[in-house]
Amino acid sequence: MLSDIEIAQQAKMRRISTVAAELGLGEEEYEPYGHYKAKVALTALEKRGSIPDGKLIYVTAITPTPAGEGKTCTAVGLTQALGRLGKKAAVALREPSLGPTFGVKGGAAGGGYAQVLPMDEINLHFTGDLHAVTAAHNLLAAVIENHLHHGNELGIDPKRVLWKRVLDISDRQLRQVIVGVGDKSNGVMRESGFEITAASEIMAILCLATDLNDLKQRLGSILVAYTYQKTPVFVRDLGVVGALAVLLKEAIKPNLVQTLEGQPAFIHGGPFANIAHGNNSILATKLALKLADYVVTEGGFASDLGAEKFFDLVAPRYGLKPAVAVLVASVRALKNHGGVAMEQITVPDPAAVERGVGNLAKHLSNLRDVFGLPVVVALNKFPTDDPQELAVVLDYCRGQGVPAAVSEVVAHGGAGGIALAQQVLATLENVENRFAPLYGSDTPLEEKIKLLATKVYGADGVNYTPEARKAMAEIKELGFDHLPVCMAKTQMSLSDNPRLKGAPQGWELTVRDLKLSTGAGFIVVLAGNILTMPGLPKTPAAQKVDLLPDGRIVGLF
Amino acid sequence: MLSDIEIAQQAKMRRISTVAAELGLGEEEYEPYGHYKAKVALTALEKRGSIPDGKLIYVTAITPTPAGEGKTCTAVGLTQALGRLGKKAAVALREPSLGPTFGVKGGAAGGGYAQVLPMDEINLHFTGDLHAVTAAHNLLAAVIENHLHHGNELGIDPKRVLWKRVLDISDRQLRQVIVGVGDKSNGVMRESGFEITAASEIMAILCLATDLNDLKQRLGSILVAYTYQKTPVFVRDLGVVGALAVLLKEAIKPNLVQTLEGQPAFIHGGPFANIAHGNNSILATKLALKLADYVVTEGGFASDLGAEKFFDLVAPRYGLKPAVAVLVASVRALKNHGGVAMEQITVPDPAAVERGVGNLAKHLSNLRDVFGLPVVVALNKFPTDDPQELAVVLDYCRGQGVPAAVSEVVAHGGAGGIALAQQVLATLENVENRFAPLYGSDTPLEEKIKLLATKVYGADGVNYTPEARKAMAEIKELGFDHLPVCMAKTQMSLSDNPRLKGAPQGWELTVRDLKLSTGAGFIVVLAGNILTMPGLPKTPAAQKVDLLPDGRIVGLF
Repeated sequence: MLSDIEIAQQAKMRRISTVAAELGLGEEEYEPYGHYKAKVALTALEKRGSIPDGKLIYVTAITPTPAGEGKTCTAVGLTQALGRLGKKAAVALREPSLGPTFGVKGGAAGGGYAQVLPMDEINLHFTGDLHAVTAAHNLLAAVIENHLHHGNELGIDPKRVLWKRVLDISDRQLRQVIVGVGDKSNGVMRESGFEITAASEIMAILCLATDLNDLKQRLGSILVAYTYQKTPVFVRDLGVVGALAVLLKEAIKPNLVQTLEGQPAFIHGGPFANIAHGNNSILATKLALKLADYVVTEGGFASDLGAEKFFDLVAPRYGLKPAVAVLVASVRALKNHGGVAMEQITVPDPAAVERGVGNLAKHLSNLRDVFGLPVVVALNKFPTDDPQELAVVLDYCRGQGVPAAVSEVVAHGGAGGIALAQQVLATLENVENRFAPLYGSDTPLEEKIKLLATKVYGADGVNYTPEARKAMAEIKELGFDHLPVCMAKTQMSLSDNPRLKGAPQGWELTVRDLKLSTGAGFIVVLAGNILTMPGLPKTPAAQKVDLLPDGRIVGLF
Repeated sequence: MLSDIEIAQQAKMRRISTVAAELGLGEEEYEPYGHYKAKVALTALEKRGSIPDGKLIYVTAITPTPAGEGKTCTAVGLTQALGRLGKKAAVALREPSLGPTFGVKGGAAGGGYAQVLPMDEINLHFTGDLHAVTAAHNLLAAVIENHLHHGNELGIDPKRVLWKRVLDISDRQLRQVIVGVGDKSNGVMRESGFEITAASEIMAILCLATDLNDLKQRLGSILVAYTYQKTPVFVRDLGVVGALAVLLKEAIKPNLVQTLEGQPAFIHGGPFANIAHGNNSILATKLALKLADYVVTEGGFASDLGAEKFFDLVAPRYGLKPAVAVLVASVRALKNHGGVAMEQITVPDPAAVERGVGNLAKHLSNLRDVFGLPVVVALNKFPTDDPQELAVVLDYCRGQGVPAAVSEVVAHGGAGGIALAQQVLATLENVENRFAPLYGSDTPLEEKIKLLATKVYGADGVNYTPEARKAMAEIKELGFDHLPVCMAKTQMSLSDNPRLKGAPQGWELTVRDLKLSTGAGFIVVLAGNILTMPGLPKTPAAQKVDLLPDGRIVGLF
């Protein structure tokens, strides 16, 4: 089979003006960025306020493994399949980050014959949204330390500056740095650090803001430091809300591209799914729902992270109701959950699939029982899958009364997703939707955390470190304890221990710390160490890529 | 008078497709970035190889002062005036940097009625070129340190890593940093630093590369470190030439926008004019020369920096010959050179202009006598200028036999530059052009430096610090001493002492150090401390800006 980029290069893209016109967008409602990308004006959504929303199809997955599940491919391929069935469908996804692109992961725009195009541009600078977030984030960092340097009128405690810096790159050397080294003109020496741009609270804000006013309101509400008197300092106290908003005024507009088979794709925003909410921008999703009858979207990681956050943090605030959940699994990944090492992952082993299916079961239960959604299982087929292994999963689903389909969208594009699309369409017509968030806005903070731990992760209870207790007390004192919870937990396990595969039982969640993201509007509850700045592997993807004299890329993705 | 941004917002822009069509660009030769910006394909230049070049009008200025000279306004206004005279004219300028935009300077896209549009976009993210340079530069930094972290096969001496990091921001705290703090997984602790993106050698390379192959060749030739055995390490040794080129493949394409009066404007690349060569991209200039009959361009700072570098580093390598030089001065600036403090700068004082005119005289002599160019003096009028003050300058020029014109392009746009444009057209027809670079490619390194110091800066001779002597010996040993010289000298004086105004005499240039920019292809000779990362002032421009709910910017520029 051809590589992802070879498939992308052979594809005949449609002009973005054609894609936009088919969506009913007027010429003044979008700006082309080249011939195959566009940014849609915010007025396009405002104008369509009275149009009823399309159906929202929410794609999530089992707990990630190195074996691969294929969530993004499935979301794209399902959209392509819906298109083949004559449905007006669109997909809404997060934007890839340059760090992983040149580090471990390669691209993040689907794969095989289930991709979004132009995949090289989407994986590189795209329309500059991540760069805009980087610029705004670092301008704010410079302004905070400039305040310290020029007399510190606000009395900011240099030891309690909460705002670090970001770069859209994987660079372990920058995780922890000392800035302001050298003479007096170089500013105030202090410890700081860099995170990857996707981890910036400004990225989360960009994805949650509903218009420019809301964007400014949220930017102004970011908590950046405490004073010597322990009073909080917000961005609005520093007088740069306008400047940050100016830097983000184009980035906030949803990006329009297309799938390999020409369906509209909104790729916009890319927040982390642990320290942030892990879903594409609300503006892109809402716009897609006004323009298409079926909108396929996905969240980061599995049902315990991206999906849970969409259901608890996003949907209730914006009046959205997912119509159906698609749970993506692969037999390779289930074998890994069943104890098979990566070296043996292609050896047929139905018993290992059987052992690993508990992970699927828990995610299914989360979606169906905890959140009340109709569910379809998408079994993403890899070339080495054995029919007996596939049968184990399909049998399990039949036993559970949950529809399931083998998906071959990577190998065959939309044609490989017809069965899945039919199951999805039937399910959202026929299965009762009892969707409800896990908790209400008046649920106390500790109760929210306990509900997440016991209902969604399968823990027996919750422990708090003394540091976490202290942080919780501070949050209550500041009056922010009503905010919803954004759990920062490993994605590698349903539990807080990345080594526990399957569906761990008999454990308690340990809350290590809590942090306020007052601009995004949630409390980040830290259960374990979350790496917010990746490192490069010994042989990074950057060493495999090349540029041909005609401008074509080879060797990446 | 309205503010720059108010004038820009009131202007009726033409669609970029109209501007491109008038230039004779086919639809497939450019990509729109929104409706008012475009990137031109490299093939557009390749295809026009046999078309004769238009006339190149090179705009430079007297030594900068806080009083303002108006070089960019004059370049833009002159282009507008040429348009009004029925000439097919274009302007080619550098891209502004975000750091100064939100720091001291405000925008850098001209001013008043002599601007390039859309000025807000040009001053902000524009088409992402600076962000692309930032990304490529920092990926390289991460790869170098990743190599140290993963076994250091090349034997790079961590104390002799030459490559720092960059951000397009003014942040003094980042000038000198310690990276790799913390445990082993955070990499190797070492000292590093950040410069502003415009100071990156990759920015200089982007502006000097003639095609993608040349870009890769130059990227591969960047000297990034020395080994423990003191052998040089180049980017090609690290295997990431392709990745860096991929990140720059769009950034290398010239950007097309327009002046306030609709003439085509190529705004592309923005290297520093001290540690780099300080002129817009050669691709943009060459393309403009194929598409227009008259191309107005400018270099950074005065005739001793940007212009000298264009004449010595750029023009000979690319077979370009400037047709005429325009030397911009203002009476305010000349008064400052004549000893008037900024507080008194608006008080009429013809005697002070008389005292300051020596600075103009030296730059005039550089252009006319050293480089052999026809020259026109553009006296950029400010509202507070006194007729007697203007007369001092015009009289001086008359005495010198050099044409001069008062320019009122800031207040009146192209109409205010008609006299200047007529002088320029007459001069390039009637005055003999004896243009020649200062030195040949076989001139020895020390001789090049001596020629610059004595002929262009007016020094009596050159001193070398022991460090500079050592660096020069190393460069000779490596066999790079044939490269041309890029002098990194203060822009605030013709001398190497920023406090010496006018035309300093009786001084010797002190060379402090030499550095190789082997990718850009020059030796940076450091005469004084060059600040490559600005700081923010106490009240940065960022605090004055705001975004209205309709997306309009107020308060900046």
